[in-house]
Amino acid sequence: MTITTQKLSKLRELLEKETLDGYLQPLSDEWQSHFVPEHANRLKWLTGFTGSAGFAVILQNKAAFFSDSRYAIQMKEELDTDVFEICDMSQTPPEKWIEENAVPGSVIGYDPALLSISEREKFEKKLSSHEISLHPVPHNPVDRLWTDKPSAPALKPVRVFPEEIAGASAGEKLSKLCTVLDRQDLDFYIFTSTTSLCWMLNVRGEDVPNLPTVLSYGILDVSEKIINWFVPEERLTNVPENFFAGAVEIKKPDQFKSYLKTLSGRAGIDKSAPDLYYNLLEESNAEVVFLKDPVVALRWIKTTPEIKAMRDVHILDGAAVCKTLYWLEQQKGEPLKEGDIAQAFETFRAFENTYLGSSFNPIIGSAGNGAIVHYGLKNGHGADVQKNNMLLMDTGGQYLTGTTDITRTIFFGEEGAPTDQMKKHFTLVLKGHIAVSTAKFPIGTTGAQIDILARQALWAEGLDYGHGTGHGVGVSLDVHEESANIHPRAQTPLEAGMILTNEPGYYLEGAYGIRIENILVVKDTGQKTDTGKILLAFEPLTLAPIDKRLIDKNLLSGQDIDWLNAYHKEVYSRLSSKLEVTEADWLKHQTSPI
Amino acid sequence: MTITTQKLSKLRELLEKETLDGYLQPLSDEWQSHFVPEHANRLKWLTGFTGSAGFAVILQNKAAFFSDSRYAIQMKEELDTDVFEICDMSQTPPEKWIEENAVPGSVIGYDPALLSISEREKFEKKLSSHEISLHPVPHNPVDRLWTDKPSAPALKPVRVFPEEIAGASAGEKLSKLCTVLDRQDLDFYIFTSTTSLCWMLNVRGEDVPNLPTVLSYGILDVSEKIINWFVPEERLTNVPENFFAGAVEIKKPDQFKSYLKTLSGRAGIDKSAPDLYYNLLEESNAEVVFLKDPVVALRWIKTTPEIKAMRDVHILDGAAVCKTLYWLEQQKGEPLKEGDIAQAFETFRAFENTYLGSSFNPIIGSAGNGAIVHYGLKNGHGADVQKNNMLLMDTGGQYLTGTTDITRTIFFGEEGAPTDQMKKHFTLVLKGHIAVSTAKFPIGTTGAQIDILARQALWAEGLDYGHGTGHGVGVSLDVHEESANIHPRAQTPLEAGMILTNEPGYYLEGAYGIRIENILVVKDTGQKTDTGKILLAFEPLTLAPIDKRLIDKNLLSGQDIDWLNAYHKEVYSRLSSKLEVTEADWLKHQTSPI
Repeated sequence: MTITTQKLSKLRELLEKETLDGYLQPLSDEWQSHFVPEHANRLKWLTGFTGSAGFAVILQNKAAFFSDSRYAIQMKEELDTDVFEICDMSQTPPEKWIEENAVPGSVIGYDPALLSISEREKFEKKLSSHEISLHPVPHNPVDRLWTDKPSAPALKPVRVFPEEIAGASAGEKLSKLCTVLDRQDLDFYIFTSTTSLCWMLNVRGEDVPNLPTVLSYGILDVSEKIINWFVPEERLTNVPENFFAGAVEIKKPDQFKSYLKTLSGRAGIDKSAPDLYYNLLEESNAEVVFLKDPVVALRWIKTTPEIKAMRDVHILDGAAVCKTLYWLEQQKGEPLKEGDIAQAFETFRAFENTYLGSSFNPIIGSAGNGAIVHYGLKNGHGADVQKNNMLLMDTGGQYLTGTTDITRTIFFGEEGAPTDQMKKHFTLVLKGHIAVSTAKFPIGTTGAQIDILARQALWAEGLDYGHGTGHGVGVSLDVHEESANIHPRAQTPLEAGMILTNEPGYYLEGAYGIRIENILVVKDTGQKTDTGKILLAFEPLTLAPIDKRLIDKNLLSGQDIDWLNAYHKEVYSRLSSKLEVTEADWLKHQTSPI
Repeated sequence: MTITTQKLSKLRELLEKETLDGYLQPLSDEWQSHFVPEHANRLKWLTGFTGSAGFAVILQNKAAFFSDSRYAIQMKEELDTDVFEICDMSQTPPEKWIEENAVPGSVIGYDPALLSISEREKFEKKLSSHEISLHPVPHNPVDRLWTDKPSAPALKPVRVFPEEIAGASAGEKLSKLCTVLDRQDLDFYIFTSTTSLCWMLNVRGEDVPNLPTVLSYGILDVSEKIINWFVPEERLTNVPENFFAGAVEIKKPDQFKSYLKTLSGRAGIDKSAPDLYYNLLEESNAEVVFLKDPVVALRWIKTTPEIKAMRDVHILDGAAVCKTLYWLEQQKGEPLKEGDIAQAFETFRAFENTYLGSSFNPIIGSAGNGAIVHYGLKNGHGADVQKNNMLLMDTGGQYLTGTTDITRTIFFGEEGAPTDQMKKHFTLVLKGHIAVSTAKFPIGTTGAQIDILARQALWAEGLDYGHGTGHGVGVSLDVHEESANIHPRAQTPLEAGMILTNEPGYYLEGAYGIRIENILVVKDTGQKTDTGKILLAFEPLTLAPIDKRLIDKNLLSGQDIDWLNAYHKEVYSRLSSKLEVTEADWLKHQTSPI
């Protein structure tokens, strides 16, 4: 009997005692964040799977595991395939598999802390017509079996995010938010997004890798204009006495659930919240109102000080990127692994004492690995870096006062030269990048409209890329912030103060990948169109050279060349003083006009 | 007592007898077409207003007239302002005015043949909360007073639209349509769009100016696969005996209403249909299903023979346009009115014996008149054409086998030369026109995405235009066909076979207007993107020179110049043989490379 078989057998015994016919085990923890820490990775403990997307369904006589095409091989390697049927989530989602494998009348258990309201609804919608029902279990059955669970790491003290950088105090933000919620006749709003709470309260933490957030919940009392913040008081030692100026009341985290049950009036909650809290609200006298987290649309417009902070952070980050690229130039003769480059980015960024860590898992893809859009570094090392080939590097940093995300693709090697095809593909991607960067557009223009500018040059050659062109970025918060994306279907109008990436690419399977990514801020040009609409434009925040060896100048227009030369001039003038003399000399050469 | 006062006083007497507190008089007739013939223009008879958009509301003690900003002056000139309060429809729509001026409990009469289902719903939605109700009147009260009403003109025989040009027989189209309707579980569909009926049945008429349609209704019996066509049999003398091959049953027009009442099962109708027919369906045993006219999405994809016919028609039309432009060159020394130019287009087009008439009221705008987007020729003459200034000409023709719509803007005059500003504005519009023309894009791309290509060069200079970039065009049918438009909010994906205009513009109020318009067909390039999507592109159908004197070559890219030269080469090679020698020489010069 394998370990997995033993665990599943014990789990099934527990389920039987509770008269349950099955159990759902998602990867997510109760914070619904991208990263699940070791002590909360119940899916890994139960199944052995270590990837970043997965879901298991255990019935009494069958079990299945679900992930996406990125993990097709890894699922087979890590899972006990005698026990688990392996499914591609996009072909056979869990609810479909249950429908086909569970008998009518089955009752499937789930931990309501781990499934969001909308996920639970999705299951019920699909399964109710087959007379299969879902049942929340009060005690997580995996936790009952997982006796040697590692303890959660101790969390650091909460840090204040300076008001002069936030551009508004917690009280001011609260006042704005209450106006929005008043219009919806809400008495309370339940915050389960730690990012929204940190933004509202001008605080940060280091509770989750890549995301400087504080794991906590909040309940806003609209008429009192107070946020009840459920966080251990001992974590607030570094927060000055009167920092929240009466806008916040600190409550013990273990009071959150009982507090929910005491509410009355109209209480708003986002459907991405854990189902548990909806269930508790249903036990209260409150009327539950499903409302998209209203802070999302507040925080996606950055304040002037936030934009300035992001600009400043990009000087530090740009210098670290240049140091890394210069170091890389020196390694051409040496054996090198993709992971060494990731480590070099980390090392050079870490020289800066406001650096907190990477903003996402770095992607370093040499040659064909660059064409795998979600390529990760296996065992932290990755593959050997191929000489005289393309090298794609997508990395980013979290700093005390900002967040970065940059992709550069270079030709790595000193003997050979890029092929004409490499140069053509690179230049087409660059043309798309420039077309977005230089666009001016009236208020009301959506990301879907901007998106075509990034693709037009590629489309003209029958080429395309299978991802969006840009995503929102938080200020020392989520590097993939919900915002007005640049995407063929993005219908949110862009507004001045939004911060977005601009990252067109091209991927030639088995050969190489190309992506050129800068972070842009949407700014008001001060002009209006003659039809009276405010004219917006982008300004790049990211500062780093674009590899000129890969450019076919014949494919660029005069305006394209002007943009590149002006951008490179800016890169040099902002960064050179932050570099060693040899590095600055190298940068001068990298940024000289074409 | 003025005539208007007398008419209104009699109308109010009639309303009082019917215990009605008011009456709605739209401009539209029962065919809901853009053009309302003299004998059906009840609004004009009642109020004196001659414009193409208007609505009157008559209460017992007040009356109001509604139109848009184009008619602000004309309303004041033509209406008795002692009787009618004048309202801008976009500020104060009729339903809002009624809400503010009628007392609760009022009952407002309307002729259900003249108001569409969705219009009636709009009124009811707004007014029901004010306890104001709408009441359909069985006999139009204006018709009862209008004793000297001109009789409707005799209608010409129905013409067959050749099957080899339509690309499918009526039976084949019917079969396709029934498949669509079967999926919706419909037993009947009520056709009130004459355009959809003409397309379905491969017939045309000349019943309405600008639109070669046959005024008639149809009821499709889905299970029998038969269209009951309500049209006078004596109009079908030119239709061969077995033309419809059993797909059509001819019925007398006056049977339509009673037939509606006999239906049972599920009957589909578009909400743009007159409310009258919905009311009659409600008297039947049928279940009414509101369904967008399903023919719209069939007819917007043109067949290969239809596209060929449109291409051929554009050679004839292009020759007539060139002859007109050449004639215009000879008139530089003569006094000239805008209407003379409209007449010249008509005359040169009418040389072709397949020409039926203009496809819309021509817009000939000299200097500042060109900046008035909906400029019309007053009294048919218009203003004097200014020498050494810009001249915008937007005209089009209906032909037996196709429809055209072309705008050219020229610098008219032999002494002066265009200013740098004129050239800059013209060239920016041209760049937008070229950017759309040369775009390649994968299937799934919407008109909203394409639209930005037309505006980008203008936006970069803070300029814009206040209308969409393109509309669908029918094949010897509606020149403004409902289709996948090119517009900032157009969400319908473009498909191969769609025919659309490409007409960016720029309007400098009081000075001049610029618009460059070609009709384009969406074609499959035969290529796929590397991500597996079919790649589409545009091909211009319109053939006529673009005024090179107005081009600032420095603002064009190499690709822009290549497109213009190739397009001009095509114009000359297709048209020269259709022209007199002097005209062809002139065209050779107009189309020589820049």
